[in-house]
Order: sequence, then C-alpha cells, then structure tokens
Amino acid sequence: MDDTASGAPKARQILDMNAYDPSAFDPAEGVADPLLDRRHRNFGAASVLFYARPIEMVAAQGAWMTAADGTRYLDFYNNVPSVGHSHPKVVEAVSRQIATLNTNTRYLTQVVEDYLERLKAVLPEALSNVVLACSGSEANDLAMRVAMKATGRTGFVVTETAYHGNTHLVTFASPSAYKTGGPPDFIATVPAPGTAAFGEDISGGFAGAVRAAIAELEARGCGFAGLICDSIFSSDGIFADPPGFLAAAVEAAREAGGVFIGDEVQPGFGRTGDAFWGFARHGVVPDMVTMGKPMGNGFPMSGMAVRPDLLDAFCAETGYFNTFGGNPVAAAAGRAVLDVIAEEGLQENAATVGAHLRARLEGIGDERISAIRGAGLFIGVDLSTDGSPDPALAGRVINGLKARGVLIGAAGKYGHTLKVRPPLCLSASEADRFADALAETLAEA
Amino acid sequence: MDDTASGAPKARQILDMNAYDPSAFDPAEGVADPLLDRRHRNFGAASVLFYARPIEMVAAQGAWMTAADGTRYLDFYNNVPSVGHSHPKVVEAVSRQIATLNTNTRYLTQVVEDYLERLKAVLPEALSNVVLACSGSEANDLAMRVAMKATGRTGFVVTETAYHGNTHLVTFASPSAYKTGGPPDFIATVPAPGTAAFGEDISGGFAGAVRAAIAELEARGCGFAGLICDSIFSSDGIFADPPGFLAAAVEAAREAGGVFIGDEVQPGFGRTGDAFWGFARHGVVPDMVTMGKPMGNGFPMSGMAVRPDLLDAFCAETGYFNTFGGNPVAAAAGRAVLDVIAEEGLQENAATVGAHLRARLEGIGDERISAIRGAGLFIGVDLSTDGSPDPALAGRVINGLKARGVLIGAAGKYGHTLKVRPPLCLSASEADRFADALAETLAEA
Repeated sequence: MDDTASGAPKARQILDMNAYDPSAFDPAEGVADPLLDRRHRNFGAASVLFYARPIEMVAAQGAWMTAADGTRYLDFYNNVPSVGHSHPKVVEAVSRQIATLNTNTRYLTQVVEDYLERLKAVLPEALSNVVLACSGSEANDLAMRVAMKATGRTGFVVTETAYHGNTHLVTFASPSAYKTGGPPDFIATVPAPGTAAFGEDISGGFAGAVRAAIAELEARGCGFAGLICDSIFSSDGIFADPPGFLAAAVEAAREAGGVFIGDEVQPGFGRTGDAFWGFARHGVVPDMVTMGKPMGNGFPMSGMAVRPDLLDAFCAETGYFNTFGGNPVAAAAGRAVLDVIAEEGLQENAATVGAHLRARLEGIGDERISAIRGAGLFIGVDLSTDGSPDPALAGRVINGLKARGVLIGAAGKYGHTLKVRPPLCLSASEADRFADALAETLAEA
Repeated sequence: MDDTASGAPKARQILDMNAYDPSAFDPAEGVADPLLDRRHRNFGAASVLFYARPIEMVAAQGAWMTAADGTRYLDFYNNVPSVGHSHPKVVEAVSRQIATLNTNTRYLTQVVEDYLERLKAVLPEALSNVVLACSGSEANDLAMRVAMKATGRTGFVVTETAYHGNTHLVTFASPSAYKTGGPPDFIATVPAPGTAAFGEDISGGFAGAVRAAIAELEARGCGFAGLICDSIFSSDGIFADPPGFLAAAVEAAREAGGVFIGDEVQPGFGRTGDAFWGFARHGVVPDMVTMGKPMGNGFPMSGMAVRPDLLDAFCAETGYFNTFGGNPVAAAAGRAVLDVIAEEGLQENAATVGAHLRARLEGIGDERISAIRGAGLFIGVDLSTDGSPDPALAGRVINGLKARGVLIGAAGKYGHTLKVRPPLCLSASEADRFADALAETLAEA
C-alpha cells in the first residue's frame, strides 16, 4: 500500500512548486516589488503565497477576482466564497448586523437561534446541538476532544494526506501539513480511498485499512477514539465514488467503539451537488459534523454539530465558550449563505454545471489526464505521464492556467491532482471557459 | 501559598452563580420562555448564559446595550467592543471591504500590509513578524507551539487562575477553565502576583514562585519552554501594581532558557491607559505577544507578534496558514480600530476616566470593598466580609447592578473580584453613573 516506491515527489513538494519561493528574500537587500518586500517584512517565515510571481488582488465578484494590474481571473481555486465573491446578500446581512449589535452568546439574540434552526434543518436530526466557533481548525479541535471524552481513548484514524486544520492537536491529525517526520502514536493513517490502494473494492479495502489502523492504535496503547474523514477527501486528491463506499469504514469504526467525525469544511454546503453534505452521498450519519470555510462565505465562522449525549459528557468535565463564535454578525452571514443557496438553487447548480464541466473535462481527450473524480463542483483531475503521477506537469498547468486568467491549485499524495472547486454560482459558459483553457494549457504543457 | 484554607468557594462556583442555571431544562417539558427554550435545544450542554434570567439583546451603541424589553444597560463587562459598540468607523470599514474583496493571504493585498505596518508601529521593534488568526485561543495555541519548537521543551508556567483560551493545548494552560482535576505534568502554576501570596515583595515573590515552578517542570522531565502571562492577570483577579513587578519573573524565565509570551488578549489596545500594551507597564519586551478580543472591535481576528528567529525555527518544521486569518475584511476592521484609538484619544481617555473612576470607587467607603486594583479602564474590586473573600456578595452585587441597568462580571481565585472593564470611550459621567449604582447596590446587598 506504500506508493512512494514510484519515486514521485511528495505532495508537499508540488504544493511548494505552486508557491512563491521566499528563499530569495534577504532582509538587508529586500526584493524589488515593494508590496512583496513589505509582505516579507511583515509575515516573515509564515508567509505563504501562490505562484512564482504572486498576485495582488483588489476586488472580486461572483466567480471572478480582479488583480491590481487589471487582470481578471476566473476563480477555480477558492472554495470559501462559495455563493460567489462579495455576494450582495451576504454583504448586506453583515453590514446591517454589525451596525446594530455584535456581541457574544452569553446573551440571547434572535438571529443566532434563527440561524441555528435553519442550519439544523439541513443536518441529520440526531445532531441537534451545534457549537459555533471561528475556524474549521477550532471545530475539529473540539470534535477530537469530544471524541476522546466520549470514549476515554485518544487514538484517531485519518487518511495519509488528510488536512483537518492548524491547532496543536489537529495538526497531528493532518499528515499533509507535516514538513518532517511522521504521525505520533495516537494517529494512525490509511491510504486515500481510491483504486491505487484498493483496486475495485474501495468500500471493503478502505474499511479493512481502517480496521487495521484501529488495531494498530490499540496495540500502541492509545485505544481508538474516532475516525475523522473529509467526506470528499480533498487534500488526498478528491475521492467520491462509488457512492456509499464510506459506510463500511464508519461501521468498522463504530464496531470498535469509536465515533465518526464528518469533516464537512470542504465538501459541505451543497458543493457536491447531489446532497447538502458530502457524507450524505455515502448514506452515513456522523456522530459529529464539523464545518467552516463556505459557512459564512468568508466571514470567519465554523461549527460542530453533535449528538447531545456526546456534548453532555464533554461539558460535564470541560465546557466550551468561544468569544467570537456564534456572534450575531456571524449568524447573519451564515443565514444569508443558507438563503442564497436555497434562493439561487446553488446545490442544483453544482450538480448541473458540475456534470457539464465533468463531461467537458472528459472530452478533452489528453492521455495525460489519467483520472477524473468528484461530485458536483468538487472535481479532481489527475495528471500523469507514461502512467506515473506527474506533479511537475501539474505545476506547469497551474501556471499556464494563470497566464490564461484562471486560478487553480493541486492536491493529493503526489500533488498531481488538480483541485477543481469554483464558486457554486458558476455558469455553464464559465465552465466551458475553464475546460477550453485547460485543453489549451495542456496542449502547450 | 495555598489560600483555599480560607474555605471560600472556588472561582468556578461564583462564575456559575452569575450564570443561568441550565439544570431546570428538560427536553420533554422545555422552559416557558420561547427564546430560552430554543437556545437549550440548539446549544445543548455548551450553552453558557449570563444571569438567572438571561437578557435578550437587540442593539448596542457606544457603552450601552439595549435589551428586547427596551431596558438600556451600561456595559461594564464586555471588553471586545473596546472602541464602543457598533462604532461607525469600524462598521464602515468592514462594510466597504466585504463588498469589495474578502480573500485569504495567499494573495497580496494592500490593506493587509497597511494594517500590519500600523500594528507593528505600536509594537516593540523586535517583534517584527505578525501571524494573523481568528481567535485569541488560536494565537496562544500557536505561541505555545513556537515556544516548544524554540526550546525543544514542553513545560509552561501559568498563574493558578489563568485563562488563555479553549483549544486542546491552551485549555491545559487555563486552570480557570478546569471543572475537575488539576494541571497536567507540562503545566506548573504560580499564585496570582498579589499581596495575598507574596506580601509586599510582589516582584521578588512572584519571580521566586516562577523559579520554583520551572524547577518543578524540570523535575518532571518536561523542561521549561515558557512563561505565559496575561499582563493584567484578568482572570486571576486583576493585578497591575507595582509597575515593573513582572520584570524579575521574565528574567527568571529567560535565565532558565524559556521564552516569555505576553498574552495581551485582555489588556492590549490601550485599555491600561498608561501604555498601549499591558507588558509596557512592567518595562519588559515579550518574545511573543498574542492579541485578540478588542483587535477588531468584535470582528473575529487575532494575532501573534513574534521575533523572526522564533518564527523561522517553527516554520522550518511546521508552517502555519489560517484560511480566515488576515483576510482583508479583518485587516480593514483592525485598521479602523487603530484609527479610532488614535483619533479619539482612547488610550488617554482610559487613563483619565480610569483614574476618575478609581477615585470614585475608592470614595464609596464601604468596608466590604477590601481592595481596588488595576490600570486605566481595567479595574478589579475585591468584595469581602469580615476580611474573607465573599463571592456570594459579588453575586448579589452583579445581579443588583443588573437591576440598576449595569452589566458587570466577576473573576479571581475566589470569584469575589468585580471585573470593571467598560469600553474605552467611557465618559466621566458614565463612570459616575456606575460608581453611584455600585454604592447603591452595596448599600442593599
């Protein structure tokens, strides 16, 4: 199951290929571009910028972003402004609420309870309590703690290129974020649920790998607290099919006494087209669902929906309060996002335009496109040369698309999977434009 | 040094006294108030509400909040809307930016670099890199990880009733958040820097306690990574004097090879009046400064300012990216906050009105006010009966002030310290109104 024998570079390397290289910066010399120089001096080593020549952005609307030099980019990368950049309904909701009242949840407000009821109406009935926080990382940090409290154990199973966030605890559960070393004892990894690892029996193979990982955690003395999956497996390279494959792994987790945390930070809020949440594609109901990125269309907010009995057990010993979490402005933003998804039929649009886009991508007919996977407007496109993952080609394609006015990124264990995730308001003609640009770029790459 | 012998209840109990008691909620029966019933069903066990009868808020301006029943409350509790609730300049900045561009820091934007340069202009020169995140918890989680990486050790010293946030890691460093049990091996606590523990030599006594705690961490095999202090010691009960007392403890930390993390989430941004940051009162420069609550006047944002060499070491092995952290809307909010503090002279106002308020509090002359401590508009008022901390009296005063239209809370090891922290735009007449209300409330309590 170890594919590194293929000699392909690790994901980290291609992700870095798509990034500005900061090593040329010398504080004494600086760099020629004034804004980039300021950036180095302000952010230091924590600066992460896209592209060898980073883009200064000045505005964005719908599926389009505008750079300082006037270039307009079709945004196939950013899955946060999911109902469209600068959506007027979200702008209006935030502007009105922040002018009226912005406080914490130790006071009651109608807008917060309204929002939670709207959110719960699209969630499984069993997950009737919701904790609001600021980032997907905070939601996953809390979910892991709830799982540990519920089970009295500390071990988690994650996929080998997973990303679940950036806190101390959650970084351990995010192998794609490791720059050096491997997982600690309380984290066991399984391969991404694709044919590369499991052949045609993805359901059985993935469940078997989860069972083996659970046994490993038990052997290490950590015990098994839970399985955490992004239900579209974004950072692993996007794995959606066959629908239902996740169910056997979730059953294996529960048989071993652990919980299943559905990380919907990436697939949630209608992106997969066939359902509002990624887990629904697999016919499973998680014990906890975490959500973030598109939840407020860019307003910082996140949440964890949870079975009340699990939350009770956690709060009896620890409790949780988040100063900014669930403030009325976040609730207003979140409510506007749910309104827009419903009013504009964005889940249906993700299904329709996603299917159109996929057909167009399949029609490109370049043999270096070795696989196309996904659901709705979350599609992974593998690029390979002579049957081997080719992250260098992915890098050239990303930069070629930039030159054609399209923003995109890559993911996966080898970094050879283009992550196709435009705003859900994408039109068929915008999808065509992307497919045409990709075909042209590949022809030159 | 263990004051629990006095038999006073622990802080947790009084904090609960000031809270709505959720135990009466039965899902089958519900509670009579419709909004409160919805709240229970939505938040579950994680619901934390102020007051036996929680307040539904509908609006807020300046130092005042308005409830649904029309009652206007003078806000002496909330230190997040620090330049005043719904400040029009912050509202305008957020509304304009969110309508134009809200994206992540992988693209360059002028507003983010503008903001960071404005922020760095009020920070010590050595802390020239800033990482932006969403919550104070995220900032402290990151700072602790940077400290561990820099030192190769894992132990931290905190005060015994400290609060630094709510992630898995930071909760361990927040003894005031423990409902049961004590600190793990990698956390050693020291008493709050007051006369109760250290008599007249607070500087020497506190530094000695820090040295003993460091030795304890070393004996436990964790080693010493850093000292983390909220420089106004908010949750410990507010300890500001004598100015400079913290310097000896910071020196002790550095002698032992650890770093000093200045947690400015509560004292920062002008509240202490004499300086922009709480640590400046003590003549120390932290190795890292974390900030949050008032940073965006309620827009979810936080930051960690850090010495570049520390950040370099962390990023070489781990790196850090925060999806919502440092987005252009947060930067616009943060820049507006800095503008308002400067334009309206709010730091000076905190000093002037704070001194006036303190004089008025000292003039109340009730013998149950056993101590008044603080700086600027961050004042702690101890309530005692017959020389013993009286958290029950604090609870009656909090509720009596509510009846008089004033919001306030309590803190400290025994929960008998009123936390006085109104918005920095407080006028002298609003300060008078509070002092009058407190005197009347005490007369009846």
